Amino acid sequence: MVDACLTDLKQALEQHLDQATKPTGYEASPVWLAARYSLLGGGKRVRPELLFRTCLMFNDSVPKESVAFSASLEMIHSYSLIHDDLPAMDDDDFRRGRPSCHMVYGEATAILAGDLLLNRAYENMLSSIQEEPSSAVLSAMRELAQAAGGEGMILGQDRDLAMEDPAFGRASPSDVIKMAELKTTRLIRAAILMGGHLSDVPADVLALLSEIGHAAGLSFQIKDDILDCVSNRDTLGKTPHKDEVAGKKTFVTVSGMQGALTALASETAKLEAGFERLKERGYQVSPLLDYLRGLVERTC
Amino acid sequence: MVDACLTDLKQALEQHLDQATKPTGYEASPVWLAARYSLLGGGKRVRPELLFRTCLMFNDSVPKESVAFSASLEMIHSYSLIHDDLPAMDDDDFRRGRPSCHMVYGEATAILAGDLLLNRAYENMLSSIQEEPSSAVLSAMRELAQAAGGEGMILGQDRDLAMEDPAFGRASPSDVIKMAELKTTRLIRAAILMGGHLSDVPADVLALLSEIGHAAGLSFQIKDDILDCVSNRDTLGKTPHKDEVAGKKTFVTVSGMQGALTALASETAKLEAGFERLKERGYQVSPLLDYLRGLVERTC
Repeated sequence: MVDACLTDLKQALEQHLDQATKPTGYEASPVWLAARYSLLGGGKRVRPELLFRTCLMFNDSVPKESVAFSASLEMIHSYSLIHDDLPAMDDDDFRRGRPSCHMVYGEATAILAGDLLLNRAYENMLSSIQEEPSSAVLSAMRELAQAAGGEGMILGQDRDLAMEDPAFGRASPSDVIKMAELKTTRLIRAAILMGGHLSDVPADVLALLSEIGHAAGLSFQIKDDILDCVSNRDTLGKTPHKDEVAGKKTFVTVSGMQGALTALASETAKLEAGFERLKERGYQVSPLLDYLRGLVERTC
Repeated sequence: MVDACLTDLKQALEQHLDQATKPTGYEASPVWLAARYSLLGGGKRVRPELLFRTCLMFNDSVPKESVAFSASLEMIHSYSLIHDDLPAMDDDDFRRGRPSCHMVYGEATAILAGDLLLNRAYENMLSSIQEEPSSAVLSAMRELAQAAGGEGMILGQDRDLAMEDPAFGRASPSDVIKMAELKTTRLIRAAILMGGHLSDVPADVLALLSEIGHAAGLSFQIKDDILDCVSNRDTLGKTPHKDEVAGKKTFVTVSGMQGALTALASETAKLEAGFERLKERGYQVSPLLDYLRGLVERTC
């Protein structure tokens, strides 16, 4: 039943993303074409699925804001990729198996398309909520705004840039963890916490979801760094070995492959422990746990 | 009394902007330094003042969300300047009498600082509202989100870029009006409408405020284009004659100085007519009207 439900939700998400980026009269504007190119260009929709699956641990169906809010999560993820790929940032010309946004639409339009998707994420949530929204709905919106902002994902990208500067010197494993905690983990954790907020779970369960989200985000990033080292472009969909070539500070380039595998094992152990405690509370954890296990074990 | 009230409000705004961009532990991060450099670097705070003054037409004091919401307006205005000045966009190295953000902090950090301020605008509104916000408060938030987005200001910048492309050919006065209606006018109108929403005015008054905001925004932009032509750097605080040199399509470069002056007279007449109708409704229009007249007559 969870699978059938998820199929419907993922379809509803795609429809929502399509509709939310098709403004009457402006469809042919370069900035909208660029935004749609990146947003609808075949992402794995990891964050929306985390939100949906978190909700499905607590109920047979998802709260009505789930589709719109998960669309906003994906818009924010998508904008961050467009801006990160820019020549002034990571200068990556390949993303999701295709040329990155600025390679197709030019730098100026790519910057604007990123701005558009970030702003649209909030327009979209604000237009989808009912009058007199509940505390749970407000908390979910605040969670996303804080995770995406200058004390979350954006600060993580700022750290990443600072660490690339030769003046930064030798990065330690804890520098890499701090950066990943902000750049990747905050948005992954927000996806899970938003599911918790929307499902109106008690505070102690939110605390557990926060721990799970943190371990999930770090596991995801460590796995990403490992895959960058062992993949080729066809399986990865973006430029492989880029981290090493660019002198990026990742779990693998700083701690070595063995160090990265050890860190991954440690985070997945925390993940499993978090789910054990949720199980003790009587929840059906498999919708989220199975998916997270799959992410950690993925090969591309 | 209006003057004393505005002095307090403007002081409260500066304090709010300062506090909202001083996150404990992260103050020294490049992205926060860059954001504060642009946000706190001496803007005229036109949009916040429009919001405050609109509220003061309807009440002796302003609704409690006014300071936080006007701070978000200013954050969005500030982010748009940072991104517009980037080399890939308008490539302007001078802003508000100082080097522009990317000249001081580099392009990557400037892009991130813009993203940070845009996101912070929403974080800031979401954290300032009470639980179970009223429809008026939600409407004010939606107004800003729509005005700033891909069907508003961002689309205007997209049009501006398209018109600079030699492939666009000769721009007509109506092309320039359409661009200015989006790029400048939407946010100015939003400032006035947000004041109206927060003051919970009836729908027909909102419609009048929308007309006034539209005429105010166009007047402001036409005046800006005129000043670009007749000023020097010391009085203007940014690179003068830049429009002409860059082949920008403005009211002056497309319609000539006389055409621009005629358009300005037409918009200010609409502005005055809108206020006449507000006066007929019994409102004290001088707080907003006097200020807008001053903006239209400004010399720098």
